[in-house]
Amino acid sequence: MPTRLPNVLVIGAGFAGVKVCQGLRHTPVHVALLDRNNYHLFQPLLYQVASAALSAADIAFPIRQIFRNQSNINIVLAEVKDIDLVRRVIRTDDMEIDYDYLVVATGATHSYFGKADEWAKYAPGLKRVEDAIEIRKRILLAYEEADNELDEASRRAKLTFVVVGGGPTGTELAGALREIAAEKIQEDYRTIVGSTVRVILVEANDRIMKQFPPSLSEKAKKSLERMGVEVRNNARVTEIDDEGVCVGDERIPAHNVFWAAGVQASPLGKCLGVELDRAGRVKVNPDCSVPGHPEAFVIGDQASLTDAKGVVVPGLAPAAMQMGKYVAKIIRQEVTAHVPVEKRQPFVYFDKGMLATIGKARAIADIRGWKFSGFFAWVLWSVVHLMFLISFRNKLLVMINWIFTYIFDSKGARLITGDFHPRIKHMRDVTPETFSVS
Amino acid sequence: MPTRLPNVLVIGAGFAGVKVCQGLRHTPVHVALLDRNNYHLFQPLLYQVASAALSAADIAFPIRQIFRNQSNINIVLAEVKDIDLVRRVIRTDDMEIDYDYLVVATGATHSYFGKADEWAKYAPGLKRVEDAIEIRKRILLAYEEADNELDEASRRAKLTFVVVGGGPTGTELAGALREIAAEKIQEDYRTIVGSTVRVILVEANDRIMKQFPPSLSEKAKKSLERMGVEVRNNARVTEIDDEGVCVGDERIPAHNVFWAAGVQASPLGKCLGVELDRAGRVKVNPDCSVPGHPEAFVIGDQASLTDAKGVVVPGLAPAAMQMGKYVAKIIRQEVTAHVPVEKRQPFVYFDKGMLATIGKARAIADIRGWKFSGFFAWVLWSVVHLMFLISFRNKLLVMINWIFTYIFDSKGARLITGDFHPRIKHMRDVTPETFSVS
Repeated sequence: MPTRLPNVLVIGAGFAGVKVCQGLRHTPVHVALLDRNNYHLFQPLLYQVASAALSAADIAFPIRQIFRNQSNINIVLAEVKDIDLVRRVIRTDDMEIDYDYLVVATGATHSYFGKADEWAKYAPGLKRVEDAIEIRKRILLAYEEADNELDEASRRAKLTFVVVGGGPTGTELAGALREIAAEKIQEDYRTIVGSTVRVILVEANDRIMKQFPPSLSEKAKKSLERMGVEVRNNARVTEIDDEGVCVGDERIPAHNVFWAAGVQASPLGKCLGVELDRAGRVKVNPDCSVPGHPEAFVIGDQASLTDAKGVVVPGLAPAAMQMGKYVAKIIRQEVTAHVPVEKRQPFVYFDKGMLATIGKARAIADIRGWKFSGFFAWVLWSVVHLMFLISFRNKLLVMINWIFTYIFDSKGARLITGDFHPRIKHMRDVTPETFSVS
Repeated sequence: MPTRLPNVLVIGAGFAGVKVCQGLRHTPVHVALLDRNNYHLFQPLLYQVASAALSAADIAFPIRQIFRNQSNINIVLAEVKDIDLVRRVIRTDDMEIDYDYLVVATGATHSYFGKADEWAKYAPGLKRVEDAIEIRKRILLAYEEADNELDEASRRAKLTFVVVGGGPTGTELAGALREIAAEKIQEDYRTIVGSTVRVILVEANDRIMKQFPPSLSEKAKKSLERMGVEVRNNARVTEIDDEGVCVGDERIPAHNVFWAAGVQASPLGKCLGVELDRAGRVKVNPDCSVPGHPEAFVIGDQASLTDAKGVVVPGLAPAAMQMGKYVAKIIRQEVTAHVPVEKRQPFVYFDKGMLATIGKARAIADIRGWKFSGFFAWVLWSVVHLMFLISFRNKLLVMINWIFTYIFDSKGARLITGDFHPRIKHMRDVTPETFSVS
């Protein structure tokens, strides 16, 4: 064992970063894991927080709890502002930390295609806990305001939800929005007829879910349409303001626009001074290292890589976890067995398959060429997602919430919190149907 | 049945307001329930959200869900800005609503004794969901910052928690803060020794929990002290800033000060133009009506009343619920049986007893003269609180969370959300004890 243990600095506690740290549990290194949040977020279920089915705490795990039994790790709540590959040092607002190995895994967010300044305030994305709570607030406020709105045009606009981007997040969110309209939650707003709630999914491509084979895209589209979602393929958003959205030449009055399109890697990649792809992802070597810096890795959604078998590594949780395990293994081998850098095996992505849910009891699956959809795909989706939810506590709570939602059609986390200003200008009359005078 | 049904306007969906509306379920009236939030908050458990044991959604129920099966009620998300007793109309930012009966039940908050402008930002209170999330954030940030703080004085200040006010809220919060320090959560911060975390409970009176008999106050104090809380009776806070607090002549460096002292009724009482007590509560008639206005009632924490038996009605949830039921009955009798105003029976408070929890498996109880404390009191407290949690769903989730917390000493909702700026200036070394090189 060396007298000074190597420092491994991991930035980002997403799927990739957590896996690197866990993979180094028994390796004689000092690990430091930096994240701007104190929790690891299970992003695939974030849309369920946005649609008020789950609480944020159900899908966010304190990072320190994950590493409770790992003695060689330091958890630091800090946002990294700069990376100096030459001096081998990173900088936060308040300190500098040096490293022997660096792993950058700060992920990606949506891309407003250069319109973030104009559009982001009208059409929030769905990447962070705060985003989900903001979207939940907007959905619930729309129903509250619409229930007492007398002007029919304004009421329709309040009950029109436009989701931009037909990838998994957008599709799941659109499905959830229609479910809200069809469920008991809608009964709570007596003047609102569920079928009048419009949900429009806008996709620039010629099909939604383009990560999946065309047959499953078609199945997903059919499922959404059966639920009442209007799916617009080959449709591009050209304008968004506080009253609506323009899709191509069509103006859609809509008070609720949510953004789930495009990919924009974390800006931290720019600090590295190496080549990025169009989405801002770092073009890494076959071993996930930064060109010219074998001691620095970029993994997860932030990395752009075609693996040794010619497969473009997708921006999915399983790929991020595999890269994390892979980099941990490289570091372990070099630190413990002194394997030279030249001997590194390139990363190979193992495609376990893909799953996406469309609505209650509806999903699509593409498992190593085996394509299927419907209820069984949804059961598989539920099982896989529960298995991945790290802690038993959360698994149990999420399961109970799902069971309740499934049986009773009732959303459990319908809280409007933070600052908000409902614009309710009238109060509708209620006409009690029956009175049994007591 | 009259051709036009009377309008009953209820402001505030706390315990009192909800009970009024429920009591009018079968009465031929139009009920409108106005609240600035879309949920009914189970305030007695709010300190568990602040201490990261529960999520806000566990103790906040969508108002519309509560009244799903009541057909004569209208739920309006709006903050009432003014009341005109003469014209019988209330005003929100966006509309006016007229009424035949008015029930004001907007509760009370803490009182900073005229120092709110100076102290509130350093010492947040605990009345709203947002308060609880803010306090949770401060507690978790304090641990995060302290874990990497090298300066011993600054570290001690970060780990010193001062709770001002020894009523139920302050006592429960102080107990919860010591529990965090003693529990597994503390193990996640490896450089922090739980016993060095100071929790100080400051009470201006000569005993804490002065709503209880002196013997139980003493028991509560002993319990807190056994847990490691420093209880200061006859102690007054004279200054608070971002570095600490002055208690009498003593300066206590503390980065975390929480406020749970004093009572200040909702400002809406002032609009009524009638006499208020020192805490801003409306001095109501024996029938809870506003002097000179038999059609307008003020109930719950916002009312100041000595009942027909000479008992000062306390600012407690059971009292609020009883007043709510009472007012509903009056309205019901007048609307359906045309009982004249002069025939109203005065309100009589029925004291079912009081319960307060001090920490895990510790509580005090005073049930109609039967005074007891310890584990059995805590079991009773748990059962009573679960029973009152309105929906089964929430009851089950809260129970599971409690069981986990009890068995595994693990807090489930440790999320820092919203804006924050951790001040971490160093990163501590970790010294891995053992390595089993794989």
